[in-house]
Amino acid sequence: MLGEFELIQRYFTSSTQGHGVALGVGDDATLLTPTAGQQLVVSVDTSVVNVHFPSDAPAKAIGHRALAVALSDLAAMGATSRWCLMALTLDQQSLGGHKLDDDQAVSVWLQAYAQGFLTLCEQHETTLVGGDVTLGNLSIGVTVMGEVPSGGALTRRGAQAGDIIAVTGALGGGGGGLALWQQGERDLAHPLIARYLLPMPRLAAGRALRGLASSALDISDGLIADLGHLRQASGVGATLEVDAIPLAEGLVDSLGPQRALKAALSGGDDYELLVTIPQAHWAQAAAALKPLGIALTAIGRCEEEPGVRGVPPEGETGWQHFVEQTPSGSDPSGNRRGESP
Amino acid sequence: MLGEFELIQRYFTSSTQGHGVALGVGDDATLLTPTAGQQLVVSVDTSVVNVHFPSDAPAKAIGHRALAVALSDLAAMGATSRWCLMALTLDQQSLGGHKLDDDQAVSVWLQAYAQGFLTLCEQHETTLVGGDVTLGNLSIGVTVMGEVPSGGALTRRGAQAGDIIAVTGALGGGGGGLALWQQGERDLAHPLIARYLLPMPRLAAGRALRGLASSALDISDGLIADLGHLRQASGVGATLEVDAIPLAEGLVDSLGPQRALKAALSGGDDYELLVTIPQAHWAQAAAALKPLGIALTAIGRCEEEPGVRGVPPEGETGWQHFVEQTPSGSDPSGNRRGESP
Repeated sequence: MLGEFELIQRYFTSSTQGHGVALGVGDDATLLTPTAGQQLVVSVDTSVVNVHFPSDAPAKAIGHRALAVALSDLAAMGATSRWCLMALTLDQQSLGGHKLDDDQAVSVWLQAYAQGFLTLCEQHETTLVGGDVTLGNLSIGVTVMGEVPSGGALTRRGAQAGDIIAVTGALGGGGGGLALWQQGERDLAHPLIARYLLPMPRLAAGRALRGLASSALDISDGLIADLGHLRQASGVGATLEVDAIPLAEGLVDSLGPQRALKAALSGGDDYELLVTIPQAHWAQAAAALKPLGIALTAIGRCEEEPGVRGVPPEGETGWQHFVEQTPSGSDPSGNRRGESP
Repeated sequence: MLGEFELIQRYFTSSTQGHGVALGVGDDATLLTPTAGQQLVVSVDTSVVNVHFPSDAPAKAIGHRALAVALSDLAAMGATSRWCLMALTLDQQSLGGHKLDDDQAVSVWLQAYAQGFLTLCEQHETTLVGGDVTLGNLSIGVTVMGEVPSGGALTRRGAQAGDIIAVTGALGGGGGGLALWQQGERDLAHPLIARYLLPMPRLAAGRALRGLASSALDISDGLIADLGHLRQASGVGATLEVDAIPLAEGLVDSLGPQRALKAALSGGDDYELLVTIPQAHWAQAAAALKPLGIALTAIGRCEEEPGVRGVPPEGETGWQHFVEQTPSGSDPSGNRRGESP
C-alpha cells in the first residue's frame, strides 16, 4: 500500500491555487485567507460504515455522501462553501473484501471514492485543504468551512408566530432509498437510491434565502424531529398541513402511501432545508429559488402555542433507520446516527 | 445511552462566549469571526484505537492526546490556536469492556475523556466550537483552527544552507514511552509514559520563533524522517551532530544508550519542533524560548549538498511502532500511523 502522503498526492490533490488558499496541502497545516467582512461557518460530520452508509455502497457514493451531509449544514446557514478537510479511515471492508496490500483494489476504490468527493467539491467551488488517512474501521470525518456576510447567517433561532414553514425540494427520498437498498435495489440511477446515497446539499437555496427566511436547518433526522429542534431554538409552536408535504419522486409507488408519508415525516437523510419565512417575504423567497430549479413548498405555520399540531400517527413513531451488526458485534441499539450539534 | 445532543451538552459544553465565536454549538454550524490581518491555519488529525493509542490507555490521556497531536501542527506553523472541532466515534472497547448501555461506565469514561480534552483546550485558549459523536470503532478526528499574522507563518520551505538545525525540548520520549507501555508500565506520572500519552504541543515556542526560524515542522514521524520532509520541501541537505541530540529524561536508564538513540532518531511521537535558524538569529531565538522554559538545542547544520550525513545505523532502520491486531483482525502491515499531509 502507498504511504499516506503519496496516497493523498495521487488521489486527492486538486488545484488549491487561489480560492483563498495561501499554502495548500503538504505542510503541517494549511494557510487560508478569510474574506474581509465575512464570518466563518464551520461544521464537522462523521460517516461510519454500517452506521451511516452500508458497507457495500459504491465508493463513489461513499465519497460524495460524506461530503454532502457536511455541506448540508453550511447550506442551512446560508453560507458559501469555501474549504473542507477530510479525515479518512480505511479498512478492508471498504474494498469489498480485498486486502489492503492488493494495490489494484485499493487504487480502484480510492479513485472512485476521490471522484465522488472531488466532483462534489467542484460543484460547490469547495477546495480540499487538509486531510488525514489512517487504517482502521472505515470512517470519514469531514470538516467544512464556509463564509457568510457578517450578521447574515440563517440560524435555527429566528422563527416567529405567523411565519410560514416551508421545505425545499421533496421529502422521504432518504428513508425511501434506504428501504429499497435494504430490499436489494443497487441502482444508483434509481431516484430514491440517488436521494439516499447521493444527496445534494442545498447551498444555493440557503444563500438565496438569506435575508428572507427567519430560520433554517437541514433535514437530517426527519421532518418532525428537525422541526422540533427549530421550534425549541426559536421558542415557537407549529401546525403542519401534512397533505401539502412534497413527496420524493417514486416514493408512493415504491412504499405505498402510508410508508411514504412516514418516510417523509420521520425518515430523515433528506438534506433538504426546513425554513420559516415571514409572510411578507414569501413571494420573494419563492421567486428567489425559481431560477435555481428548486421548489419551495409551504407545509405549515408557526404559532405562539408551544408544541406541534397536525402530525398524523405516521410521524409519531420513529423510522427504522439503517442499522446493521458491526463486525465487532456492537449493540445496534441507541442513537447510532450522527447529528451535528 | 444519552442522545448525542445531550451527551455533547453534558460533557463538552464550554463557555464559547467571546473568543471570536459569534454563534456556538447548537445550530447546524458554528459562526466564527476571524481576526482582521490574520491568516487562518487549519489541520485535521485522526487518532484511532490500536493504531495511534492503546485500547487500555486512560480516557483522560486519549482525550488529551488526540487534541495535542493536532495542536502540534499549529505549533509548527507558529500559529495561535483559536478553535477546534471534535468528531468522536465511540465503541465499547473505549470503556474497558463495559457495554454502552451501562450509563455509569459511559459517564465515567466520557467525563475523564472530556477533562483531558478540555483542560488542554483551556491551556491553549482554544474553544471547542463543533462536534459530532457517533458509534463505531473508537476514533477521534480533531480539526484545529488557529491564526497567524498574514505572511508570518513558519513553513517547511525556508531552510537555507548554513542555517542551524535545532529541536525544542528533548527527543525519544514518545518512542521510549511506547516501549515501556508495551512492557506493562501504566503510570501516567512516569516521565516517558507522560511524553508518549500526554504530549505537550509547542505552541508558545512556535509563536516565539516566528520571524527567527527559517523553517519548522513538528516531530511526529521521527527526527530522521521529519528532517527528510524539511530537506525535501526546502531543497537543502544536512549534517547532524548526533551527540548533541537532547534525550528525554530517563530514556537511557529505561532503554540503554543504543535503543535510546534509536528512539530519538526514529521513534517519533515526540511532538517537539524541528526548526532551522539562520546563524544571525540564533542568539535571539534561544533567548526567546528561555522565558518559556523550553530548551532549544542545535543538532546540525543545513548544507547545499543534498542528502543527510552523520546519521548512525540506529537512525537508518525504522522504529517498531505501536501496532496491535485490531478486533476485526485486519492486517497490521503497512503504514498504520497517520501523518498530516
